[in-house]
Amino acid sequence: MWTWKSWVNSANTPETDFPLQNLPCGIFRETDGNPRMGIAIGKFVLDLQRCNHAGLLEGLSENVRAACEQPSLNDLIACSASGWSSLRRRLAELLRTEADPTHRRKTEAALLPIASVALLKPVQIGNYTDFYASIHHATNVGRLFRPDQPLLPNYKFVPIGYHGRTSSLVVSGTDITRPNGQTKASNSDLPRFGPTSALDYELEVGAYIGKGNPLGEQISLEHAEEHLFGISLVNDWSARDIQTWEYQPLGPFLSKSFVTSISPWVVSMDALAPFRVAMPARPVGDPAPLSYLSSVVNQNIGAIDMKLEVLLSSASMRSAGSAPMLLSSGNLRDLYWSFAQLVTHHTSNGCNLLPGDLLASGTVSGAEEGTQGSLLEMTRRGTQPICLPSGELRSFLEDGDEIILRGYCKKEGFPRIGLGECRGRIIPAPFLSS
Amino acid sequence: MWTWKSWVNSANTPETDFPLQNLPCGIFRETDGNPRMGIAIGKFVLDLQRCNHAGLLEGLSENVRAACEQPSLNDLIACSASGWSSLRRRLAELLRTEADPTHRRKTEAALLPIASVALLKPVQIGNYTDFYASIHHATNVGRLFRPDQPLLPNYKFVPIGYHGRTSSLVVSGTDITRPNGQTKASNSDLPRFGPTSALDYELEVGAYIGKGNPLGEQISLEHAEEHLFGISLVNDWSARDIQTWEYQPLGPFLSKSFVTSISPWVVSMDALAPFRVAMPARPVGDPAPLSYLSSVVNQNIGAIDMKLEVLLSSASMRSAGSAPMLLSSGNLRDLYWSFAQLVTHHTSNGCNLLPGDLLASGTVSGAEEGTQGSLLEMTRRGTQPICLPSGELRSFLEDGDEIILRGYCKKEGFPRIGLGECRGRIIPAPFLSS
Repeated sequence: MWTWKSWVNSANTPETDFPLQNLPCGIFRETDGNPRMGIAIGKFVLDLQRCNHAGLLEGLSENVRAACEQPSLNDLIACSASGWSSLRRRLAELLRTEADPTHRRKTEAALLPIASVALLKPVQIGNYTDFYASIHHATNVGRLFRPDQPLLPNYKFVPIGYHGRTSSLVVSGTDITRPNGQTKASNSDLPRFGPTSALDYELEVGAYIGKGNPLGEQISLEHAEEHLFGISLVNDWSARDIQTWEYQPLGPFLSKSFVTSISPWVVSMDALAPFRVAMPARPVGDPAPLSYLSSVVNQNIGAIDMKLEVLLSSASMRSAGSAPMLLSSGNLRDLYWSFAQLVTHHTSNGCNLLPGDLLASGTVSGAEEGTQGSLLEMTRRGTQPICLPSGELRSFLEDGDEIILRGYCKKEGFPRIGLGECRGRIIPAPFLSS
Repeated sequence: MWTWKSWVNSANTPETDFPLQNLPCGIFRETDGNPRMGIAIGKFVLDLQRCNHAGLLEGLSENVRAACEQPSLNDLIACSASGWSSLRRRLAELLRTEADPTHRRKTEAALLPIASVALLKPVQIGNYTDFYASIHHATNVGRLFRPDQPLLPNYKFVPIGYHGRTSSLVVSGTDITRPNGQTKASNSDLPRFGPTSALDYELEVGAYIGKGNPLGEQISLEHAEEHLFGISLVNDWSARDIQTWEYQPLGPFLSKSFVTSISPWVVSMDALAPFRVAMPARPVGDPAPLSYLSSVVNQNIGAIDMKLEVLLSSASMRSAGSAPMLLSSGNLRDLYWSFAQLVTHHTSNGCNLLPGDLLASGTVSGAEEGTQGSLLEMTRRGTQPICLPSGELRSFLEDGDEIILRGYCKKEGFPRIGLGECRGRIIPAPFLSS
């Protein structure tokens, strides 16, 4: 299947995120239509409801076909991994150049240009956990606040994470309202309430849980990958000034919960298989993970070699017709903890994961300059602003700024497998009446 | 209505939590039956589906009657406050001594002894937030960890809270599996993984959100009470040794997410009206709340005068036929922040609350000895164990221990309005294979 081409020409170009080998799932809506399930192929979305009605999914199990008629991916996610894999294989057969001509005609009738539909939140996410799995991010941030001890003593043992807010998860393209909140200037005795002046993005990748686990039963590292359905981009928008004032002792709360953006397409673990690589070697002197977080398989292929990019476009840049500016470029393989380790740690206390739960990586940053996944790190907490092509300076985000996250895997001999984009544009804070 | 009596005799006794004036909602199941909605009256549950089928709810709006047929309270909660109030008034008419005899006969046919049914999780909770609203609890805990600065500088300005885990919310009566986790002894260089040896309860009260708010729009303090549906007991089980090692810098995670218990009955804000009291006066020198968290009405009736009790029964005590021991007794009115303030703060950044979301108070402790809502506080982090009637000592919970939370309002001239009980019994940690 990795050498196949598609009769959808836009799926065969080197720059597409969505070749025949990707087939990410999502939920879309035509103008005034109902939400329906689709998969992305080149510049098109294939309508799975229409495919099913046209008899193109015959031979697949009843529950997979029924799941394809649903307005969210949850039922599909709740099917077994072999269920999703069988659907993906079937769709690849329909879309490959060697497809049966009758099938091809019916399949063509179920294609819609992605540009013509609205992409919706793909999953009803019951629980959202945000981790802190990049040691470079943790070190960069720690250095700003605790120069003498950037990394806390637990970091190399505990995959640190916290529960995020699910109600304010929104799909890419949703406007981001600048939040109000309490902040306290270091030279003031009293806090004040008003719009954040330190609005930031966080470049993250999130994994959707496929099969869950019963309350009280841990998922061992050996089996953790079987519980992953697929991944997407996540932008964990953050108000740094609110965060600084509120986070002791129970962690970030309103500085994060105003909104979190997710990309519309969920790329399956199957599609990422060729890009699995070894975990980064732990530096000499670092402890080995405790045994429940350690396995040879995880060490050898626990990571994903995926390029991640952040771009910014300001209102002035758009007016001037400038292209978005690349702010940074990192790689998902740099994480200190793999998604499998995050699953195992999360359930190590018996906590139950449910199908469709989202586990985000935390900000993905690398060790070098230009690989940091947040403005907090890039501008050293706002003290070293970035200069945009328009001549504007940015310490943190301004109203009108748009942030675009991208992620893709690229490797000689394989088509590019991408996550698509996750976009969000800042709009002004609501007016305060008193 | 506050002077009415019921023809259900057990609803007229001074010790019942469920007089005619309470009528809390819940979800129950008869042996092998489907989940159905009911309200508690004395020692009985009134089956609302049966009431509706018998025509007893005629005159109520279509959506309220449809909500009564659902297997969770969510649809009822999503109805307007006038919808819930109309249902409660209608049920009080059916259950009062002066009820129409035909109606009474039909209503009697819809009563089942509470003891004969299983009580289920009443609400599908989309989002669960746990606050830290008791200044006495925050001070008691802070003193154990930071004797020189028990209370952090933000406490008197920010209603501190964090997102909790929803998947592991369970109803009262569910066994509590002792969690495994990472802990690090102060005299050891390395952490270890295994069962917690510092398992604790936290006595809390949770408020269910009725009407939600759109993303990006704050709920002002003036309108916050309109967004509360009702309250229940919450036991936020905690593993203190896991918490100590994991909580920096993102807050509690696996030390809490293994399980949280909620009581089965939701008591409406209407039923609590006679017990609303002034917020405790802030000590001289304390700052006033910022203006968005301040109102005269909240100051005058923001608190709820409700007695809260924790009882413990060990396996030996039960074998010996001993009654549970009262560990502590506090009052909900002692909170530093009201539920209305919690709602307003939670939405102050534009975060959207959904119908059925749960906002818990955090551990409710008072200023005096005997009013602390956790063992951490009572035993001074395990250093001053409690002696049980069996002669056993308790620093933290042992396998076989059962914790019982109770809450009730009592006032001259009014029937007692209670929350019922929230129970959980500790069972051993799962066996670790390696």
